[in-house]
Amino acid sequence: MKSGVWYPVLGLLAWLCCSGLEPVGAGKVLVLPVDGSHWLSMKILVKELGQRGHEVVVLVPETSMLIQGSGNFKTEVYKVPYSNDELERNMNSLRESLFEKPPEITDMFINIERLVNFTSFQEKGCESLLNNEVLMSQLKETGFDVVLTDPFLPCGSVLAYMFSIPTVYFLRGLPCGLDLMANQCPTPPSYVPASFSGNTDTMDFKQRIKNMLMYSLETYMCKIIYVHFDNLVSKYLEKGMTYKDVLSHGAIWLLRYDFTFEWPKPIMPNMVLIGGINCATKAPLPADLQEFVDGAGDDGFIVFTLGSMVSNMPEDKAKKFFDAFRQLPQRVLWRYTGALPDDMPKNVRTMKWLPQNDLLAHPNAKVFMTHGGTHGIYEGICNGVPMLMLPLFGDQGENVHRMVSRGVAETIDLFSMTSDTLAAALKQIIHDKSYKEKMTELSLIHLDRPVQPLDLAAFWTEFVMRHKGASHLRVAAHDLNWFQYHSLDVIGFISVIVITVMFLTLKCCLFCTRKCCRKAAAKRKSD
Amino acid sequence: MKSGVWYPVLGLLAWLCCSGLEPVGAGKVLVLPVDGSHWLSMKILVKELGQRGHEVVVLVPETSMLIQGSGNFKTEVYKVPYSNDELERNMNSLRESLFEKPPEITDMFINIERLVNFTSFQEKGCESLLNNEVLMSQLKETGFDVVLTDPFLPCGSVLAYMFSIPTVYFLRGLPCGLDLMANQCPTPPSYVPASFSGNTDTMDFKQRIKNMLMYSLETYMCKIIYVHFDNLVSKYLEKGMTYKDVLSHGAIWLLRYDFTFEWPKPIMPNMVLIGGINCATKAPLPADLQEFVDGAGDDGFIVFTLGSMVSNMPEDKAKKFFDAFRQLPQRVLWRYTGALPDDMPKNVRTMKWLPQNDLLAHPNAKVFMTHGGTHGIYEGICNGVPMLMLPLFGDQGENVHRMVSRGVAETIDLFSMTSDTLAAALKQIIHDKSYKEKMTELSLIHLDRPVQPLDLAAFWTEFVMRHKGASHLRVAAHDLNWFQYHSLDVIGFISVIVITVMFLTLKCCLFCTRKCCRKAAAKRKSD
Repeated sequence: MKSGVWYPVLGLLAWLCCSGLEPVGAGKVLVLPVDGSHWLSMKILVKELGQRGHEVVVLVPETSMLIQGSGNFKTEVYKVPYSNDELERNMNSLRESLFEKPPEITDMFINIERLVNFTSFQEKGCESLLNNEVLMSQLKETGFDVVLTDPFLPCGSVLAYMFSIPTVYFLRGLPCGLDLMANQCPTPPSYVPASFSGNTDTMDFKQRIKNMLMYSLETYMCKIIYVHFDNLVSKYLEKGMTYKDVLSHGAIWLLRYDFTFEWPKPIMPNMVLIGGINCATKAPLPADLQEFVDGAGDDGFIVFTLGSMVSNMPEDKAKKFFDAFRQLPQRVLWRYTGALPDDMPKNVRTMKWLPQNDLLAHPNAKVFMTHGGTHGIYEGICNGVPMLMLPLFGDQGENVHRMVSRGVAETIDLFSMTSDTLAAALKQIIHDKSYKEKMTELSLIHLDRPVQPLDLAAFWTEFVMRHKGASHLRVAAHDLNWFQYHSLDVIGFISVIVITVMFLTLKCCLFCTRKCCRKAAAKRKSD
Repeated sequence: MKSGVWYPVLGLLAWLCCSGLEPVGAGKVLVLPVDGSHWLSMKILVKELGQRGHEVVVLVPETSMLIQGSGNFKTEVYKVPYSNDELERNMNSLRESLFEKPPEITDMFINIERLVNFTSFQEKGCESLLNNEVLMSQLKETGFDVVLTDPFLPCGSVLAYMFSIPTVYFLRGLPCGLDLMANQCPTPPSYVPASFSGNTDTMDFKQRIKNMLMYSLETYMCKIIYVHFDNLVSKYLEKGMTYKDVLSHGAIWLLRYDFTFEWPKPIMPNMVLIGGINCATKAPLPADLQEFVDGAGDDGFIVFTLGSMVSNMPEDKAKKFFDAFRQLPQRVLWRYTGALPDDMPKNVRTMKWLPQNDLLAHPNAKVFMTHGGTHGIYEGICNGVPMLMLPLFGDQGENVHRMVSRGVAETIDLFSMTSDTLAAALKQIIHDKSYKEKMTELSLIHLDRPVQPLDLAAFWTEFVMRHKGASHLRVAAHDLNWFQYHSLDVIGFISVIVITVMFLTLKCCLFCTRKCCRKAAAKRKSD
């Protein structure tokens, strides 16, 4: 029965061939990634596209930390007007500030300042690429079928717009929700919590007021955050055009979340949810690690990392962790490159790098200590391991809040924590079965899907290549301004008509009443 | 690599078994379908669920026309307080009226009147089931895992709510958009055309005014259309509860459309698009039909049906069709049970029933003449055959409008048509290649999908069984009233604060200015 499904496709393809139109087989993919952890998940899709026989070219700035070519894709390195040292200094100042002071209400503004610094840095890199005439004309001549890019940086979408190539975006989400705005996705502030609001999707009146104010603030912040990108777009594409306008031309948005992580909310036809794309593939553990975790027995073990950016911390802070771990029967695997104490606990093993996802897949993994990046969170969800979360910066506080409110994690403040509070939090997660039960339920829901996220991402990228975009999924709202979108002109017009009619009716009534009264008075007088 | 994907699932399932929770294997499905063409597509899913090993029970009213048990599912027949004759009379009056008079502006109201008559009829049938104590307690005891129902009639969702069984809805859409309202799906009137508005998704100011007015009218019409269902719900569930409230508890909405047919618009996480579920399976043509269509040669053939309800028409109307077909070199296959003319054209073959989808799959099918039901339309799209459309009633006018505005079909008015206009329209579709080209493009897009609609529908029904619902996809908007949903209370509160602050500031300024002026005047006086 199922084999019959493809008859009409084959028939249509035959018709297409006869009519001179050729369907795309192996295509040409131009990739503009974002370095660091962003690249780690995009790489999975880039490799898959290469394995499917497409010609994949990845544009890499010369200062890149992680992006390297492989058998499946080529890289094309371009010059940038800053050095590795400058980039490293920028990163170091961020790393050092992490352990300097406790989180405060002003953190949002500090985050924004850091972001604007970062984007101004990146804008220069992008300008350098756009001004590289040799490379640009070489790219143009290649005739790419699709641009795959992470819109956290603007170069990919600007280049795609310039060369009229359909674009596929790959992202978790953009600061201040620019992705949702650009894609005309409704986010009612009554039940979709604003970033940094600390709200869930269920809010009381006070929380909804806060949410509304945060949304208004966000709209304003968006202008500040993206000022450099807007300038770039205005300079290289059309005067007055904004980065949001460019983004609105995206054919497909591959989003690294699903509703086991994100609060349920409206989506658009061209939004494809691929949360968990980074944890589908597992490898066996190296022999020494396998021995270490197996040796933990029923007590199990804890996996502790603070993400790809942070592998060290001040010695006094590290001491608190060592002291806490010493109190536990569990073994601990910690990605840590700092100094080790003299009285190093026997149950702790520090390493430069951990096969995080493979470790979490072990049935004896009891707790995952993480900073709350989305990669790590999805590795926790995929493997059903409850988490103790230590958010550092950016959207991590938000991510942690989502997991804690689902009852699958606890959070601990990196600044005020002591060895005892840390040990107590870990014991609570291990001994209170509800964390594991809720996480297992969440994990089963997350893993129960009709198509694997990687297959879905590859399918939609190829779809865009085959059909030169996905215009049938593009809403007509893109052609309206905000006044028209919210029907304010229509409501205004109808209101004017209604008010005029009511006013004229009232006037008529008054006129008639007055006339009648006058007549009656005149009659009384004449009587 | 791909085999590794299921490791965590297996691990979690093992954990579940150890913890005493059993995952659902073969489940129990209770089906409450709607008779007629609605059943034809739902049957495909019902059969598939039976084939997947689930115990499927279909509740059938004794007057049912098409619903019959099969090897894959059981039926349970229940009594209704009306006879087959009464039902037939109701249908006949509808059929006869179709050819009586031309379509008019008042058709919408006639449609609504017919709908209300129909629903009052069906409400009685449902009451009869709910009052059948023996059957009801038998159903309750069975312990069904899911109710699969077409919410065009209320019995399924009422019963599911009564027994607290999660519900999967299977539908094309409900009159006046009740499905979207119940599922909290945003439909901005600025670009989502209202039913019967004649608009597309791209509207000018005048069209947007009309759209807004039609939406307002729809909201009012909803109250009239669903009054019988609201009464039923209020009587059997909770006083004051409406049908919309009951529908809002649906776990998954399986919707028989996609964006090759529907205008792109926001969707909700629990909306699963399964458009084209009815045309995936093909069978070889019977030998005589195969000979007839093969014999048509390069000129090809036309397939003509007016849906499952209408196989006949007045003789003078039929004559116009025969006369038109006589002018064409194409052969015509017509589902027609009326009287044949003496000078029956040789290229026409009338039949009681046509294997529509199998005929359209033939490469020489040139035009599909259809009334514009969604089943037929999707068979046209699946097979890439352009259409000549003759809408009769209900949402067919709307459906036809969608196809015509995509350039894949033409429409002709059944009342004003002549043999010549009909023949001209057919010739135009056959000779102007743009219809076939656009239809082929639409068809390729429709068929290019990561999962077949039937597999998707079965997957999500089983998902609901496995997880006892899909609560992670349910938006928190369900807990808000419309005032809160639109943040009107929050906007009101913030406005009051802002106005008060502005008023007080103004008062302060005025007070100070006045005081300063007085002092200056006093000073001038004293000088």
